[in-house]
Amino acid sequence: MRDVYIIGVGMTAFGKFLDTGMKQLAAEAVGAALEDAGIPREELAFAAVGNSGWGAYSGQTTIRGQVVLRPLGIGAIPIINVENACACASTALHNAWLYVASGQCEAALALGMEKIYHPEKEKVMQSFIGGTDVEESLKLIAEALQSGQNPHTIFMDIYAREARRHMERYGTTQRQLAVIASKNHHHSTMNPKAQYRVEYSVEEVLADKEVTFPLTRAMCSPIGDGAAAAVVCSGDYLDRLSGARPVKILASILGSGMDRDPDGPHICRRLSEKAYEMAGLGPEDIDVAEVHDATSYAELSACENLGFCAPGEGGPFAETGATALGGKTPINTSGGLESKGHPVGATGLAQVAEIVWQLRGEAGDRQVEGARIGLTQNGGGAIEPEEAAMGIHILAV
Amino acid sequence: MRDVYIIGVGMTAFGKFLDTGMKQLAAEAVGAALEDAGIPREELAFAAVGNSGWGAYSGQTTIRGQVVLRPLGIGAIPIINVENACACASTALHNAWLYVASGQCEAALALGMEKIYHPEKEKVMQSFIGGTDVEESLKLIAEALQSGQNPHTIFMDIYAREARRHMERYGTTQRQLAVIASKNHHHSTMNPKAQYRVEYSVEEVLADKEVTFPLTRAMCSPIGDGAAAAVVCSGDYLDRLSGARPVKILASILGSGMDRDPDGPHICRRLSEKAYEMAGLGPEDIDVAEVHDATSYAELSACENLGFCAPGEGGPFAETGATALGGKTPINTSGGLESKGHPVGATGLAQVAEIVWQLRGEAGDRQVEGARIGLTQNGGGAIEPEEAAMGIHILAV
Repeated sequence: MRDVYIIGVGMTAFGKFLDTGMKQLAAEAVGAALEDAGIPREELAFAAVGNSGWGAYSGQTTIRGQVVLRPLGIGAIPIINVENACACASTALHNAWLYVASGQCEAALALGMEKIYHPEKEKVMQSFIGGTDVEESLKLIAEALQSGQNPHTIFMDIYAREARRHMERYGTTQRQLAVIASKNHHHSTMNPKAQYRVEYSVEEVLADKEVTFPLTRAMCSPIGDGAAAAVVCSGDYLDRLSGARPVKILASILGSGMDRDPDGPHICRRLSEKAYEMAGLGPEDIDVAEVHDATSYAELSACENLGFCAPGEGGPFAETGATALGGKTPINTSGGLESKGHPVGATGLAQVAEIVWQLRGEAGDRQVEGARIGLTQNGGGAIEPEEAAMGIHILAV
Repeated sequence: MRDVYIIGVGMTAFGKFLDTGMKQLAAEAVGAALEDAGIPREELAFAAVGNSGWGAYSGQTTIRGQVVLRPLGIGAIPIINVENACACASTALHNAWLYVASGQCEAALALGMEKIYHPEKEKVMQSFIGGTDVEESLKLIAEALQSGQNPHTIFMDIYAREARRHMERYGTTQRQLAVIASKNHHHSTMNPKAQYRVEYSVEEVLADKEVTFPLTRAMCSPIGDGAAAAVVCSGDYLDRLSGARPVKILASILGSGMDRDPDGPHICRRLSEKAYEMAGLGPEDIDVAEVHDATSYAELSACENLGFCAPGEGGPFAETGATALGGKTPINTSGGLESKGHPVGATGLAQVAEIVWQLRGEAGDRQVEGARIGLTQNGGGAIEPEEAAMGIHILAV
């Protein structure tokens, strides 16, 4: 397998864009990535396009990539439309990496895109349920409705249940979860692309509306729209470019969840061990990471399973400030899903964009000084008790 | 890149299965492919799962592969859910081939699955429109409804327009299209997996209900449900198996359509030239082929663009009997999409199953004697005037 480099990234701001079409969002992200790479669109010889919820509710399924890329003059190349719930975009990057690494082509595009906001609440809910076993979820929803509960928190309920388990087992506190959320909201104030850029103190996070105990609204990722893209290439191709600022992909790992012993290794641990092995390094070498904080608990869990701290120590680890800007391992300098936003199909590549900017020293006020190696962890869907899919990438300059 | 072998194929019968869930259809196809390969499910280290229409209308989007594979005990491996309209299944095989060829794993699964039949006609129509640029199609449908036309034939209209163009340019006749359909319906009488197994004489095809001139119903693929799967592996893995009956993948090519000069090379010509180059052979070496006869015209066009006959000669070529069993290049011995059926997301792998059976000498009454090299051509969606996606595979024993 050949070395693969990211030579361009781009993303839209994340937010609520009811009046902006998907073609426009994709055009902005792809245009920015190509401009950043400094190559013309004709050089792209493969594209992988990830989307999760928008396809089903817009009716634009099955050839989403061709439909958004054609107006940009990108066609006549292999285009693979990929889905993997919240891990769509890292799945797209994995496929683009594989195409270049295996010598199928020299330069490729990975695009992740999403529109979840919709005037009809049922459509929004539908797009989330698609990331679960729908047969099973429809039964749960029917039960919730019968017992007068709000069935709209189905994913947050899963995270909350895992969080309560962690609290019972390790003494993790709700306040520790709030520390993580407060830190991410603070980071987002320095990110012009973030959906929310509002400070929340730990007390304000705790006082926010409860979603499902121990999670309050400020600990949960919002609904969002947006797109993000990356251009990747081979070393041979890179050698012919002048002025490139390449970031090397040291590891690209994709995996899926399974039925498991609740005390067995979590999907994130299984996959990160593979990623570290592929990259030839360990968690202690990671200078900056974007992890899939669909909730604060998910970040806590990721810190443990990525090996940034010991099992059970995610709460205290956050409290020490280790994961904040200036700490030992700054996590989610972008603001994370909780605050930068979580347009499902775009998230994995927005994480990659943040790490690329960090490694190139272009992250502005939220720059991690001297960052050389970064990691992204992007989990998607639920095959309980695990994510249905997860992509982990390790990048370096 | 390493050599890759197909060691097992399986498919459900194709038909109308309103009361059979997708999990059941997938289980049958995957189970048959694993049994055919003679390996346990635990050996699969990657899966690519293609589906087109069912996801959107069932609400089971984005992690369709995980949801159908988990009950079979297949999980904890990278699973990529892929879409490419009617070319979903060949896209899945392409991804599985790439995973093994590039050394990412030793044994992988490609699964294509579909349920299109639905009690609500609108749902059926919706699943087809998803294979076009929906924004544009909704305008066309509105116009059709306003002028009192039937908007349900949108894909058939595209094929019919191309067919009329071919008739004007080359003198192709409606009767020649009927010869192709009649031949495929005859082939299907020998295929127990086919959705329809009914003889149609050329006169009966011509006398059938008109869809859009020159296409009659018997020249068009029906709505269908079903699933098909293949197990692929590396040469190293194959060496450790006893009793395997491998079929080698000589070429795996995926591509997409674009705006083109109507007289420029068709996507099928562009991709088949790449496939022949990769396989180190030419159209004259193909002993048997399954092509994407969504309509009889599509088979005629494919015969020309695959190089089985000269441009414009597809009609006379079929009339000579060259594409029938016993002819020079038997095409669609399975009955093709027109008669075996066309469960969109499954079709590409059903084509592969037919070619594998032919090359192993297991095709029963429809066996092509001495077949050593076969080809599948699987086109999907519409980025007019071309298919939005196409996969071509060349296989050999």
